[in-house]
Amino acid sequence: MSRPVTVEEAAALLRQADDILILMHQYPDGDTIGCGYALARALQSLGKRVAAQCCDPIPPKYDYLTDGVEFPLFTPRFICPVDVADPKLLGSLAEPGRQADLCVDHHGTNVGYADALLLDASCGAAAMVVARLIDALGVPLDRYLAECLYTGLATDTGCFKYPSTTPEAHLLAARLLEAGVRHGMINERMFDRKSRARLELEKLALASIRYAYGGRCAVMTVTNEMVAASGATEEDMDGLAPIPRQIEGVWVGITLRQKPGGAFKVSIRTGGGVNAVAIAARFNGGGHPGAAGCEIAGTGEEAADALIAAVGEAVPGIREEI
Amino acid sequence: MSRPVTVEEAAALLRQADDILILMHQYPDGDTIGCGYALARALQSLGKRVAAQCCDPIPPKYDYLTDGVEFPLFTPRFICPVDVADPKLLGSLAEPGRQADLCVDHHGTNVGYADALLLDASCGAAAMVVARLIDALGVPLDRYLAECLYTGLATDTGCFKYPSTTPEAHLLAARLLEAGVRHGMINERMFDRKSRARLELEKLALASIRYAYGGRCAVMTVTNEMVAASGATEEDMDGLAPIPRQIEGVWVGITLRQKPGGAFKVSIRTGGGVNAVAIAARFNGGGHPGAAGCEIAGTGEEAADALIAAVGEAVPGIREEI
Repeated sequence: MSRPVTVEEAAALLRQADDILILMHQYPDGDTIGCGYALARALQSLGKRVAAQCCDPIPPKYDYLTDGVEFPLFTPRFICPVDVADPKLLGSLAEPGRQADLCVDHHGTNVGYADALLLDASCGAAAMVVARLIDALGVPLDRYLAECLYTGLATDTGCFKYPSTTPEAHLLAARLLEAGVRHGMINERMFDRKSRARLELEKLALASIRYAYGGRCAVMTVTNEMVAASGATEEDMDGLAPIPRQIEGVWVGITLRQKPGGAFKVSIRTGGGVNAVAIAARFNGGGHPGAAGCEIAGTGEEAADALIAAVGEAVPGIREEI
Repeated sequence: MSRPVTVEEAAALLRQADDILILMHQYPDGDTIGCGYALARALQSLGKRVAAQCCDPIPPKYDYLTDGVEFPLFTPRFICPVDVADPKLLGSLAEPGRQADLCVDHHGTNVGYADALLLDASCGAAAMVVARLIDALGVPLDRYLAECLYTGLATDTGCFKYPSTTPEAHLLAARLLEAGVRHGMINERMFDRKSRARLELEKLALASIRYAYGGRCAVMTVTNEMVAASGATEEDMDGLAPIPRQIEGVWVGITLRQKPGGAFKVSIRTGGGVNAVAIAARFNGGGHPGAAGCEIAGTGEEAADALIAAVGEAVPGIREEI
């Protein structure tokens, strides 16, 4: 297990280190990218040799953080993963036998793989932990650092929408805006831009929605055929799962996503005290009371039929007349 | 014209007043509702007889603010519109000859109809101005007041997404969260819930999208027939206009919305330095560089054809090969 460290201890470790390699998780999101680039820049400003690496390319929508940033090549002597709860998430950068020195994270599920662990699970974004660390390192927040941290903060809190958003998240946002963050530009890129393929896929997915139990259950199906017809990529799939549950009056929202092999990955979202696990468990799945998942073979229609039947049995009161 | 007043002067006016009628604008949104109910509660706590009124019913999604709130009947002796830039926006509550005593607002376009005007156009939400006023009145923020103000703040800043969001907006949000605001519940209601009819309408509207100039221009058409087929109401129309402009690679996004008479209301949104007014002006419309509008008669297809042709002429470089 990792040794838990305070912000000051983590800052001391970094101050003593050099040739620091910062690692971001695979399928990188705004939080791991924002943390990685912010910490790299902050440590560079202290005169250290630093690089930030990810096994996957950084998507072009983050070019305001990556443009003009080049990292030197060196043999790392200190390894620091950011927003990485498990070394598996390093993808092809996970080298067996290579030990992480310090992990900076906000996932309560962190498996404790690094020597030292700076973790605060009350933070809605790892960027909040990195901001404290940069403060402890004594590096002032310029616009670049602030835009890195804002990107992490905004993406992981759903632009301050999720329940995980804390007063501290807003206080940090206020500071970052003071530092000159172009939040209009960043938020438009993060939250208001859709690819043409994504829009096409959404249209097909919306057309697939089936309702049951007087509209209390909605099932949306995304087949491989739809994905191919729309031209959507993996990145275009983000945020589809919540759609059925967002419909007014829906207690149980289910999204079926076909896997390359043909079986369906099932995402079950519930509200109003309905236990999603009770539904998923009927198909050997699991999860949390509000969001659970499982897998079902067969055609999309068969899978939807089976799920709707299971919802009728597992959810008290859902069959009642409205 | 109104006499501009400071927060302290506005608080003094309210402290001297009684039988206060607070007015909200028609088609009420979260900001006017949050301001109206917050100010009413704050003044009640100072022992005043107060009511808040709107010519339209408050939508049920705001029931966490309105449940159990009842206002007494009385002949008003002090009239205070909140978030109302023009008396026309009071709808059927706009009585000729009845003068507003104090208007609290954040619209730079306020026409100056009230005796006294407390206005700060740098505020992304009128709730920020009302929060200052409640502070000046010396009323502490309990959870109810905080939820009123958070609702106004979050809805008018697009949950802190819009460029109009200031450091002060985040500082206020931090304070409101400290006061116990149920922001997860509020934001889910405000931003993540869609009626079945709205989803149906979106599906039809997405299917109508036409692209031109290599995808740099996208035109979406919402006809009366689509609205009728979906069962959508006026409330379901919110947020349709930005959709075409949100598509990746689109410089000019246009939404056509058929009016009851058959003509189309045109909303033009642009990015990347394209001037929307130059397009709208060709149809005797106007607006701002990034968002303009006009009206066009004819069928939806004819209107779209005319607009696409106008875009080709008005926007430098849009016809170039990609």
